[in-house]
Amino acid sequence: MKLNIGIIGMGFMGRAHSNAWSQLNKFFDTDVEICLKAVACRDKARGEAFAKKWGYESVETDWRAMIARDDIDVVDILTPTYAHKEMAVEAMKAGKHVICEKPCALTWQECHEMAEVAKETGVVTYLNHNYRRVPAVALAKQMIEEGRLGTIYHYCGKYMQEWIMDENFPLTWHLQKEAAGAGPLYDLGSHNVDLARYLVGEPTAVQASLRTIVKERPEASAGAATFSAGESTEGNAKKPVTVDDAAFLILDFENGAIGSMDTSRFAAGRKNFNCFEIYGSKGALCFNLERMNELQYYDMTNDVDHQGYRPILVTEGSHPYVGAWWPQGHIIGYEHTFVHAFYDFVEAVRTGGKMTPDFEDGEKITKVLQAAQISDAEGRKVRIDELK
Amino acid sequence: MKLNIGIIGMGFMGRAHSNAWSQLNKFFDTDVEICLKAVACRDKARGEAFAKKWGYESVETDWRAMIARDDIDVVDILTPTYAHKEMAVEAMKAGKHVICEKPCALTWQECHEMAEVAKETGVVTYLNHNYRRVPAVALAKQMIEEGRLGTIYHYCGKYMQEWIMDENFPLTWHLQKEAAGAGPLYDLGSHNVDLARYLVGEPTAVQASLRTIVKERPEASAGAATFSAGESTEGNAKKPVTVDDAAFLILDFENGAIGSMDTSRFAAGRKNFNCFEIYGSKGALCFNLERMNELQYYDMTNDVDHQGYRPILVTEGSHPYVGAWWPQGHIIGYEHTFVHAFYDFVEAVRTGGKMTPDFEDGEKITKVLQAAQISDAEGRKVRIDELK
Amino acid sequence: MKLNIGIIGMGFMGRAHSNAWSQLNKFFDTDVEICLKAVACRDKARGEAFAKKWGYESVETDWRAMIARDDIDVVDILTPTYAHKEMAVEAMKAGKHVICEKPCALTWQECHEMAEVAKETGVVTYLNHNYRRVPAVALAKQMIEEGRLGTIYHYCGKYMQEWIMDENFPLTWHLQKEAAGAGPLYDLGSHNVDLARYLVGEPTAVQASLRTIVKERPEASAGAATFSAGESTEGNAKKPVTVDDAAFLILDFENGAIGSMDTSRFAAGRKNFNCFEIYGSKGALCFNLERMNELQYYDMTNDVDHQGYRPILVTEGSHPYVGAWWPQGHIIGYEHTFVHAFYDFVEAVRTGGKMTPDFEDGEKITKVLQAAQISDAEGRKVRIDELK
Amino acid sequence: MKLNIGIIGMGFMGRAHSNAWSQLNKFFDTDVEICLKAVACRDKARGEAFAKKWGYESVETDWRAMIARDDIDVVDILTPTYAHKEMAVEAMKAGKHVICEKPCALTWQECHEMAEVAKETGVVTYLNHNYRRVPAVALAKQMIEEGRLGTIYHYCGKYMQEWIMDENFPLTWHLQKEAAGAGPLYDLGSHNVDLARYLVGEPTAVQASLRTIVKERPEASAGAATFSAGESTEGNAKKPVTVDDAAFLILDFENGAIGSMDTSRFAAGRKNFNCFEIYGSKGALCFNLERMNELQYYDMTNDVDHQGYRPILVTEGSHPYVGAWWPQGHIIGYEHTFVHAFYDFVEAVRTGGKMTPDFEDGEKITKVLQAAQISDAEGRKVRIDELK
Repeated sequence: MKLNIGIIGMGFMGRAHSNAWSQLNKFFDTDVEICLKAVACRDKARGEAFAKKWGYESVETDWRAMIARDDIDVVDILTPTYAHKEMAVEAMKAGKHVICEKPCALTWQECHEMAEVAKETGVVTYLNHNYRRVPAVALAKQMIEEGRLGTIYHYCGKYMQEWIMDENFPLTWHLQKEAAGAGPLYDLGSHNVDLARYLVGEPTAVQASLRTIVKERPEASAGAATFSAGESTEGNAKKPVTVDDAAFLILDFENGAIGSMDTSRFAAGRKNFNCFEIYGSKGALCFNLERMNELQYYDMTNDVDHQGYRPILVTEGSHPYVGAWWPQGHIIGYEHTFVHAFYDFVEAVRTGGKMTPDFEDGEKITKVLQAAQISDAEGRKVRIDELK
Repeated sequence: MKLNIGIIGMGFMGRAHSNAWSQLNKFFDTDVEICLKAVACRDKARGEAFAKKWGYESVETDWRAMIARDDIDVVDILTPTYAHKEMAVEAMKAGKHVICEKPCALTWQECHEMAEVAKETGVVTYLNHNYRRVPAVALAKQMIEEGRLGTIYHYCGKYMQEWIMDENFPLTWHLQKEAAGAGPLYDLGSHNVDLARYLVGEPTAVQASLRTIVKERPEASAGAATFSAGESTEGNAKKPVTVDDAAFLILDFENGAIGSMDTSRFAAGRKNFNCFEIYGSKGALCFNLERMNELQYYDMTNDVDHQGYRPILVTEGSHPYVGAWWPQGHIIGYEHTFVHAFYDFVEAVRTGGKMTPDFEDGEKITKVLQAAQISDAEGRKVRIDELK
Repeated sequence: MKLNIGIIGMGFMGRAHSNAWSQLNKFFDTDVEICLKAVACRDKARGEAFAKKWGYESVETDWRAMIARDDIDVVDILTPTYAHKEMAVEAMKAGKHVICEKPCALTWQECHEMAEVAKETGVVTYLNHNYRRVPAVALAKQMIEEGRLGTIYHYCGKYMQEWIMDENFPLTWHLQKEAAGAGPLYDLGSHNVDLARYLVGEPTAVQASLRTIVKERPEASAGAATFSAGESTEGNAKKPVTVDDAAFLILDFENGAIGSMDTSRFAAGRKNFNCFEIYGSKGALCFNLERMNELQYYDMTNDVDHQGYRPILVTEGSHPYVGAWWPQGHIIGYEHTFVHAFYDFVEAVRTGGKMTPDFEDGEKITKVLQAAQISDAEGRKVRIDELK
Repeated sequence: MKLNIGIIGMGFMGRAHSNAWSQLNKFFDTDVEICLKAVACRDKARGEAFAKKWGYESVETDWRAMIARDDIDVVDILTPTYAHKEMAVEAMKAGKHVICEKPCALTWQECHEMAEVAKETGVVTYLNHNYRRVPAVALAKQMIEEGRLGTIYHYCGKYMQEWIMDENFPLTWHLQKEAAGAGPLYDLGSHNVDLARYLVGEPTAVQASLRTIVKERPEASAGAATFSAGESTEGNAKKPVTVDDAAFLILDFENGAIGSMDTSRFAAGRKNFNCFEIYGSKGALCFNLERMNELQYYDMTNDVDHQGYRPILVTEGSHPYVGAWWPQGHIIGYEHTFVHAFYDFVEAVRTGGKMTPDFEDGEKITKVLQAAQISDAEGRKVRIDELK
């Protein structure tokens, strides 16, 4: 079976996705043959350079044109958040399977529309919370499902970065509500909530404090991108930052657990500090994306004198996804998680199965995040089921 | 100058305090000579055994009698929380300097009364949040005051233990509201709030979720104590647990910082996991009581290619309190923090100075903790200044 | 400029090299265009499957035929050690640039012949000690050259694995002297010596103890490979293990430093524990391949109260090689080091420059390792210049 | 039973020993009552100040006079190494039980004499390698004896410090062969060898490289002591350093294990970095004195997917010695190890049992260390049984 991929977007994510598509058939055994068919880009020259480097067969300057093509099976959407819903809906209606970068959309209502269209059209959708498929995280899931943690009492999530601490870092789209929906609450917190839902269960209520630390920033000059200030912003006009710079949450879970979730882009020294601690009646697990090949495990069934948090080096062939790569002890990197996800996605397409997380998950995640915004605004605990 | 100490309470804390008093003159240079004068204990035989072991000169079976003695200068109160206020007030009114174990008292109003009497009588009071005087924490304070962190954005506090995860752990006084005031919220959280106020500043509002995980427990048999279940509780009647087993908080600070604070006695593998991360505009600091001789420091003034969280081994003679002990590289233990505190306390007595934290701090800490109780009950953010 | 690659060998290394060749043009900017021209493999079917997966244009069942082809520019040799010398020499004599897996050859004399032919033919040669090009190691080199460590006093190297601890692990080629030359002394120690020479300087004398722990092993069944026992060896005849299972060395360096180097395949829990600590007059550096995105740095120029070993997360765009990959905080994996090396190699070919380490380095490394064998056999310190 | 203690020496060790004696009856249950009877010190005033602080009843200005006293049961020797033999022998001949600081004596012949006299007199002797009684180390011993490591393959010991890296650090007694016998080889290496013998078994042969990095140093001014340079040495004459600054060893063990042992006082950032890794057929253990409340354990009997090096926090009441101190999670410090040792010592005296390590152990340790000196001088592997 052959799957023709059409991609919209060419930045950091464009490279990560294109790499994953091109690695898939080299490392994973599947009957699906990936074909990089088209890239959609308004700027034809840029699109062609990108297509040449990554092996796409063609360039479309209008994403609608690409979606309309018969020879595209999968549309892979990597644009800023505000564009997700329109593109995804149109692609699904055209019968394409859709991959969409996170966060899902600006509001839970947009996500809901995406989920509804997915249901109607029956296509396979995947919302790219790629950290579910870090082998260490997949192993955590496996261990929780095996009952190794028993009843879960606590989820302590944290996602900290530092890349906009400089007050002259420009007002990129990530810092504008109409483009991004929110700040780290969405960008980082959506990952945390995804992992919380995946590993612990459904949140039922949220309390939150959000904070915008740098209130206005210079407009961006050329070359600005996620993580990169681009050319000097000296002399550029300053405009208001309309998203949070940090968001701290408390989560109540359906199963009785309580959790915390701290996100910030103002945490000195934290580069990609996506962490969780999960405490259960029989043990605990800890993860830190900066050491993503490790999973710490505390096993209360060990005898009391010899217990301790052991960092499992998740590089055994028997660990999830690892067998496709290298022998034990040879670690993998960030981008491998995309390959794992795309492998599962194409298998779902091939078998007619379901992929997770999908747009329905996106809706649930976004409700939690928007509940946090309401909580912050109104100074009260907000039940998730209030959002309907 | 000689100071005569009278102590009320003989458990875990009785040993820790007595040890500290007996070590003080051996390790710290001070003109104050410590004399262990009396121990108050209802059970005369137990009291005498304790006095003999630790070198107290006498035993009183009535704490009031001890407080009434002319030859007592300092009353050191180590009883369960519910008794603090009465004892401390009576001691202060008798003109004694007072040391009191944390948490300060059952309610902020009790603390307030303690603080008022302290003011009226002019005695020196000390609320034993001993972790302020872990050398690594004192170093953190010093570094923050030197401006090494710049503006503080976040405080992430956590205090996790696991000692009551067994549902047959008995209903000791720590688990009864009338004796303890609250569960980990008070017992552990009071330390977190003390450190947050010490290192970051005043909280202005709180959001919280509290949870009682094991709803009822067997009454205690002989030998039960903090951290210890004592003899078998098989067959003992079960009674309701009236305090929280876990308390998760979000703190808004006066200076604009936001913080989190997770406390629990149901965190597998966490023995005494009292941690903080403090993020500022110029750097960050992390501490974990289980490795209490280390302080992690991230210094943004290092050049960008060589930055990292460095664990300072806080064992240099130039580090706070360390010079009194051993040469570099020789770590100290938990109980040393009490010696540091008592040294500062006796110096405050000697010089007529002020000791911190005192009962006024106790009032402020307790207001934050009670605000958390209200927040949990009412599902809303509670301003600290509502409690008045 | 276009470079046509011909590869000999298709196992673990075949995948790692092929991946690196295919990633090079996608991530690194170079005027050299890589073309995967041919794979040499006795088994045509296996060769064709491999060629299809990785994009090689053709298959040769005789490596000599491949070397003889005009359209091959680079010969990449990944066979067991015993075959290196013959293949490399023939390739160089045919005017090909040559990449060869480590260890270089069975003896320093073989290496010497390789180095001589390289000199005569003027081709570019590269001995694949890929760990030089872990960004953290390259950063260490940079920092040492900047003088940040001052005079180097000590090198403590260690390379531990555990994959043959099971005494029924079969007698693969790695465990036979005629194929491998030595055990971990060569396989792991060659990396240690390479890093020691790269980062510290030339060793002048060696002392060593070698040990074969499991004296005989069953012959291998189908599927056996490095790190993999393959099918059951039950009933297979046992034959003697003719290499060391562990080798511990002391190194004296030309610059006065002394060093240790412990290698073993019998170190429980060590998956790929390639570590070094380098101590100098101004600071120290530590590295562990299992956390290969980190480099620990102790900087004595920090004020004494705030010093500590800081783990630099080597993921900044300004760190060596990192800019080609992902933004800060996104770690890379094992196989990326091959891309870095091949990038440097093709640039050396393009510019007519020199690549390191080359076969001359291979000779020097192998002399150190063989000196260790002599030391162990004769119970004495062996000077490297005795081997001539 | 009462034991009267007489101590010779008042520096860093004088404080550590006196503290241990004074803590013993407070924390450990024993029928032995410790009485600090006398301190021997040439300078009467200094002696009296010390006696007052620590509670010794009397001062002798001649150590012989103290040994001669009938009311002394135990002589505790803390002087520089060169004085150990004479004092210990005289004390034993006077029928006293003897504790002696490490290293045992200047030569193995001196140690042999001490051991012989111990045998003849039947007194209890203890050589203070206190790190055997770090709870984590005692736990390691227990686990090894339970067979949890299986057959031991490797011992990797390391003891690194940095306190004489400054070339103006003065020529204290530690740096003079006639007083100290050797440099870190003796001072630090004696601990390593003690732990190696305790945990692994007898070494049979040694290879070594020793190095003196700073060849001459200024004579000491007032206040110089171990770890402390004292007053400025500016203008003081320089004299040769006659001991090693670093010593790297390879050890062959009777049981077939091979080991390494790196010691140095020129290891930047290492304050008291006394480490070991012990690898066996069923697991491994790692220890680092700078985190002395932890023991890392790798258990190969865990299923392969969930293995890892777990840091056991050795603070449970069931861990060796820990029950005497604080509840779980409350760490202890450096000086507690002396209390543990003295407790075992007084129990040996009380019960007529044997204490370890004793002077016979001192002889065996010193033979290994002197074999290292011969190996370095002669460039060959030296069998321990050559020293006789």
